[in-house]
Amino acid sequence: MSGKEAIDNKEESVARRIVRGMSDGVSSIAGFQLEDVPMPEPGAGEVLLRVLYLALDPIMGSHTHAGTASSRRPEPGVVVDGETVAQIVSSRHPDYREGEFVLSRSGWRTHAIATPVQILRRLDPALAPLSTALGLYGAQGLIAWTALRETGKPRPGETVLVADAGTAIGAAAGQIARLRGARVVGIARGARACVFVREALGFDAAVNGDARYAARRLRAACPDGVDVYLENADGALWEPIWPLFNECARVAICRPGASGAGLGLWPGFGGAARAVGDRLPAMMHAIVARGLIVRGFIHREFSEYYPEFLREMGEWLRNGLVRYREDVIDGLENAPQALADMLQGRYLGKPLVRVASPE
Amino acid sequence: MSGKEAIDNKEESVARRIVRGMSDGVSSIAGFQLEDVPMPEPGAGEVLLRVLYLALDPIMGSHTHAGTASSRRPEPGVVVDGETVAQIVSSRHPDYREGEFVLSRSGWRTHAIATPVQILRRLDPALAPLSTALGLYGAQGLIAWTALRETGKPRPGETVLVADAGTAIGAAAGQIARLRGARVVGIARGARACVFVREALGFDAAVNGDARYAARRLRAACPDGVDVYLENADGALWEPIWPLFNECARVAICRPGASGAGLGLWPGFGGAARAVGDRLPAMMHAIVARGLIVRGFIHREFSEYYPEFLREMGEWLRNGLVRYREDVIDGLENAPQALADMLQGRYLGKPLVRVASPE
Repeated sequence: MSGKEAIDNKEESVARRIVRGMSDGVSSIAGFQLEDVPMPEPGAGEVLLRVLYLALDPIMGSHTHAGTASSRRPEPGVVVDGETVAQIVSSRHPDYREGEFVLSRSGWRTHAIATPVQILRRLDPALAPLSTALGLYGAQGLIAWTALRETGKPRPGETVLVADAGTAIGAAAGQIARLRGARVVGIARGARACVFVREALGFDAAVNGDARYAARRLRAACPDGVDVYLENADGALWEPIWPLFNECARVAICRPGASGAGLGLWPGFGGAARAVGDRLPAMMHAIVARGLIVRGFIHREFSEYYPEFLREMGEWLRNGLVRYREDVIDGLENAPQALADMLQGRYLGKPLVRVASPE
Repeated sequence: MSGKEAIDNKEESVARRIVRGMSDGVSSIAGFQLEDVPMPEPGAGEVLLRVLYLALDPIMGSHTHAGTASSRRPEPGVVVDGETVAQIVSSRHPDYREGEFVLSRSGWRTHAIATPVQILRRLDPALAPLSTALGLYGAQGLIAWTALRETGKPRPGETVLVADAGTAIGAAAGQIARLRGARVVGIARGARACVFVREALGFDAAVNGDARYAARRLRAACPDGVDVYLENADGALWEPIWPLFNECARVAICRPGASGAGLGLWPGFGGAARAVGDRLPAMMHAIVARGLIVRGFIHREFSEYYPEFLREMGEWLRNGLVRYREDVIDGLENAPQALADMLQGRYLGKPLVRVASPE
């Protein structure tokens, strides 16, 4: 019996949710527990949401990393946090109608009660496919768009290098930079991802991020140096990349929703496994001698750009000027395994868990 | 006999200049040689300059640092490079008249031949004292002004922290930030410099930069954290400073005319003497988790801002809204000793060598 059938059969009385278990492991599915709970009832001023899609994000897997302070680790028994696309089942708020689609932060569950402050925005399926609100047409697209607008500022003919080009932020950043006239080079994990980045996403070049060969390949792919770099991965290739920065290059370091916890994921910047010495002097030297701009981006800033971003990205999406790939996994109960698979790099596109279909 | 008298007596036939000697030491005066040479004659399209002031800059002392590549070390026998304020003695160029004042890059000499491209700009003593073209009203003021305009962007009430607040860049940056409404804290070397920064320059607070106590003093002087930081010193206090950065803080790292050579001066970022480990991960963590902007400034950019800067700074100077201090050393022949003294921290203000007086 698939997750969807289970939900349909039980919708009248039972909701399901996934909570973090007592075990600490999230790269196995052992760290999560699926629970049945009574169907919640909306109070006055509240709505009942049926979750359609939930997004998987690397940050969800970060809480077991050794670098994470234990105080920031989510409590066992708490529903896994995350953005979802949902439909309003019933409303006791005058501004929301049954059947409307919304982006919310309900976490990993089939149904949730929400007040207006927990609804991030309304979604119109005529403007963009609903699921894209969890990727290209949502926070990840916004962070890429904002990083290019605020810091990257690619000019026609400049070289824009994008880390983890196959993921939502990287794919959005590279395609936006290309629409702005830049030459775009993506770094991707493995030969298959490189083909995807080049052929499906239309990047000018793709470089296999295998650290053993990356320095030579990056130099070859960026013969005129790098004018803009979007770091949205783990910093593993920082050392071969930064010598390529041209004078006045702009470096945007993006983590959507990054908190202290999420940053434990960066083995490259962490560099703990290797005796690299102190890399700060070389970086400060590069920043000053080459007049670099380095900026960190976290999506809780920049909400004032959301309307402009949605307008521009929506037009690009409807005109087929930006492309995306989603890997859809069916059933809430499969979310933990999907997260583990994602952390293993098993998906090429944006992994989404389909919890239910719209009615 | 003072240098000035010597020049006056010989002006008809002999010019003097200081070249780098065969010895490698510039912190002693042994690294320089004073030479008499025949008075140069301007050719068609050239002017003859009499140097009035020459500027001393820490970068001039950087060429003996162990971190400097030998290929970048100036050749022995070459006249010491540097900006000067000069007066035109005779002109064979239609655009320049005898008696005009100019900022040039003639280096350490009493007289120089210049073509228009070697003249950086004309100076009007009615707009600002001539000597300020080598400090507050010149490249160092411009870099401070630009760093605040482009990256610092202080808002009223924000805390702006300025390293080496007693030097030309630091003094300019702090006073500009204060005019823009910020609360300004300066770091200075020693108690006497702190008094100067607070009382003469009008900073809200000054912190003695002695590394042993700086962390505690900085926290006390910046109770609301740091919103803007101007690093124009040696990076020595980087570690106690960066934990103070507020979310979305802006960090400008300035070196006027910085080349690869000049950066060898940064023992703090160099950190070679201490086993500090790799500080890059912590810095990248701070950049992302707090959404920081870090930018390097070198004054060869931003020449398009020169007119606007001169207009605004000129008004401030004439209205007494910015202050400066110059330590004037008389006589070209005393420039090497003055440079050595400056590198030892013996001057509170901007050290200038007065080579001659205007006629």
